[in-house]
Amino acid sequence: MKELKGAAIFGQSGGPTSVFNSSAAGVIMTALKQKCITKMYGAKHGIVGMLNEDFCDMSLEDPYELELMKTTPSSALGSVRYKLKDADVDDTDYKRLLEVFKKYNIRYFFYNGGNDSMDTCNKISKYMQKSGYEIRCMGVPKTIDNDLFGTDHCPGYGSAAKYVATSVMEVYQDARVYDKGMVIIMEMMGRNAGWLTAASALASCNGMGPDLIYLPERDFDMDKFLADVEKVWKKNGNVFVAVSEGTHYADGRLIGDTGYKDAFGHAQLGGVALTLADAVKAKLGCKVRAIELNLLQRCAAHCGSKTDVEEAFMAGETAVLKAVEGYTDYCIGFERAPGKRYKCEAKLISLSEVANTEKKVPDEYINAEGNNVNEKFIEYALPLVRGESRPPYRNGLPRYAKLKKIVVKK
Amino acid sequence: MKELKGAAIFGQSGGPTSVFNSSAAGVIMTALKQKCITKMYGAKHGIVGMLNEDFCDMSLEDPYELELMKTTPSSALGSVRYKLKDADVDDTDYKRLLEVFKKYNIRYFFYNGGNDSMDTCNKISKYMQKSGYEIRCMGVPKTIDNDLFGTDHCPGYGSAAKYVATSVMEVYQDARVYDKGMVIIMEMMGRNAGWLTAASALASCNGMGPDLIYLPERDFDMDKFLADVEKVWKKNGNVFVAVSEGTHYADGRLIGDTGYKDAFGHAQLGGVALTLADAVKAKLGCKVRAIELNLLQRCAAHCGSKTDVEEAFMAGETAVLKAVEGYTDYCIGFERAPGKRYKCEAKLISLSEVANTEKKVPDEYINAEGNNVNEKFIEYALPLVRGESRPPYRNGLPRYAKLKKIVVKK
Repeated sequence: MKELKGAAIFGQSGGPTSVFNSSAAGVIMTALKQKCITKMYGAKHGIVGMLNEDFCDMSLEDPYELELMKTTPSSALGSVRYKLKDADVDDTDYKRLLEVFKKYNIRYFFYNGGNDSMDTCNKISKYMQKSGYEIRCMGVPKTIDNDLFGTDHCPGYGSAAKYVATSVMEVYQDARVYDKGMVIIMEMMGRNAGWLTAASALASCNGMGPDLIYLPERDFDMDKFLADVEKVWKKNGNVFVAVSEGTHYADGRLIGDTGYKDAFGHAQLGGVALTLADAVKAKLGCKVRAIELNLLQRCAAHCGSKTDVEEAFMAGETAVLKAVEGYTDYCIGFERAPGKRYKCEAKLISLSEVANTEKKVPDEYINAEGNNVNEKFIEYALPLVRGESRPPYRNGLPRYAKLKKIVVKK
Repeated sequence: MKELKGAAIFGQSGGPTSVFNSSAAGVIMTALKQKCITKMYGAKHGIVGMLNEDFCDMSLEDPYELELMKTTPSSALGSVRYKLKDADVDDTDYKRLLEVFKKYNIRYFFYNGGNDSMDTCNKISKYMQKSGYEIRCMGVPKTIDNDLFGTDHCPGYGSAAKYVATSVMEVYQDARVYDKGMVIIMEMMGRNAGWLTAASALASCNGMGPDLIYLPERDFDMDKFLADVEKVWKKNGNVFVAVSEGTHYADGRLIGDTGYKDAFGHAQLGGVALTLADAVKAKLGCKVRAIELNLLQRCAAHCGSKTDVEEAFMAGETAVLKAVEGYTDYCIGFERAPGKRYKCEAKLISLSEVANTEKKVPDEYINAEGNNVNEKFIEYALPLVRGESRPPYRNGLPRYAKLKKIVVKK
């Protein structure tokens, strides 16, 4: 493949994770070492920063701060929720991007995000191909939801799963402290896929897992749920329930629909745990506590999975190396080697394939009653939380990266 | 002081903390080394376990598991919320305790808890004195609320404060990830004292602290609050609010009163953040997220303060050593040495003094507007979160203590 010389641009999109910045570091630190990459731009707030020519020269950052990005949650450059229209319908944004790419001689485009962001990446890649503008477009996966198609798992999932399992273990012990038991209803993120809620089951490796787990992959039935809870309550005098924010009735109605929608048209969810806690309290009259893990589960870098942090970095690094080699129009995926010992390698997935396709928790991981996951899920997920990643500490508090973000003059 | 030979009993009471077990380990491990202490009993669920003769022989535990208690949250023996009546009104429980103490020749009584538990400890101590039964009674302090009288700070506070500050730093970054800002309302525990909510300000040491902090020490005014939020919102386009569950209006009415009361007659609180989030949404129409740290803040042993864990152990250890020396009727307190360098030593406080008295955040730590804390608070609290305490990990998950809890035959 012939060498392509020019600038690179990197952007992030969608909900942050605690290893989002680690993938950013993987792209940026690797790109800065490539001779053919003449400039490394970091777009503020993803595609919006590119459209507005609002991007930073990453070569001006302190290498120590770039290194710290590996253990810094959220997105240091900023993320965005902005859906590109189809180019056939309205090509304004695409024309503008082409203009910007030409102006700065941008020949490498790295986009880091989930389903929607891979759709954005795919659309841009296809438009640029059609326009005859030579640019190598690579997607870098990210999502705590673990729902990207074509990859064994997604960067961001392992750390969120570790936080969820750890919190379940801790609350499990806290909730059993008194001589009188209680019902805990803990709500995890996950609109359509229950991967993160399922991760609560990892706590069962230490005998502290939830009694009942409800995923969006199964229709929810309130009567069955209350009967499930009552059964455990009568047997143990304590109940721990994990439930996904996206859990819904058979007619598709969400338990916790707030009526509000975000920019991508997704319903903003919440209050599932509270709704269920009220129902249990009314039925059993016992002490019930609703706990929503909320934003904490996607930004708890103080409790990161080393496996996840390293793989997130590797995904970014591989995207750059493969683009430099000549590949374009791909998203990085992970392939797990067969055998007992966990080993994971990067692979390439076509952007068209990964865009907008969701991977849900498969039937074979869910129990027959639809109220828990099984050993197969544990075998799948446990290696992903292995190893402890933590930021350095100063004065008892985490020291997170602080970028200078020196914006390039227009 | 003459040597007192006999058995010792230890119990825990009140809401757990992530270092509750560390104090237990301090008492148990130290007592097991004392020649004059013939048996070391651990009561299940505090005073209730003592009344029911439901206690364990701690000498039968694996020393490694006892060591692990230092980094295990909650209470391995179980806690309780049980209020002793005044002996003048009803001495049934006291008579029963005396009977149990005599039966097992219990001559050392160690009780670990907060205000209410120190009241229990004090009542028992005074009753036994009056009865002429020789027993040495010592209180070991505990509370994330940091509201015990006569001590510089309380075991449990440092770790909870570290978790709060860390979570604030992480959510701060997560909430600023998009090109459009939002308002975060984070709710911390603390009924009457705002110490834990104030700990959110430690995040400001790294430029990630809340803009506004509301404590129960100041009357809450909804109009003033909304004006405060609007002011920051207009200036920065992002607002981070920390609020205590016990924050109340001038007439004493709680923002988040649920109408339910616990065994001590305290109102069960919750929903403060949700209530305020609704008010802000109605006023500003912007994106608002309510986050309740809930039980997580008092059991996050994976993010413990080493200072706190060690001091919690020391409090238990000191209680035993002082009792063996001949002291009785005291609670262990901490005294901070003057000077820049943090140094803390154990001291003795009379049980009568500490029982039922609350120490609130002093005026000199709160700003004039009553919507934040100042540098003096940071100077006070920062040393308490220093050092990282973590459980050992197995397969990516914390390994917490598992006691055998072999119950003594009645």
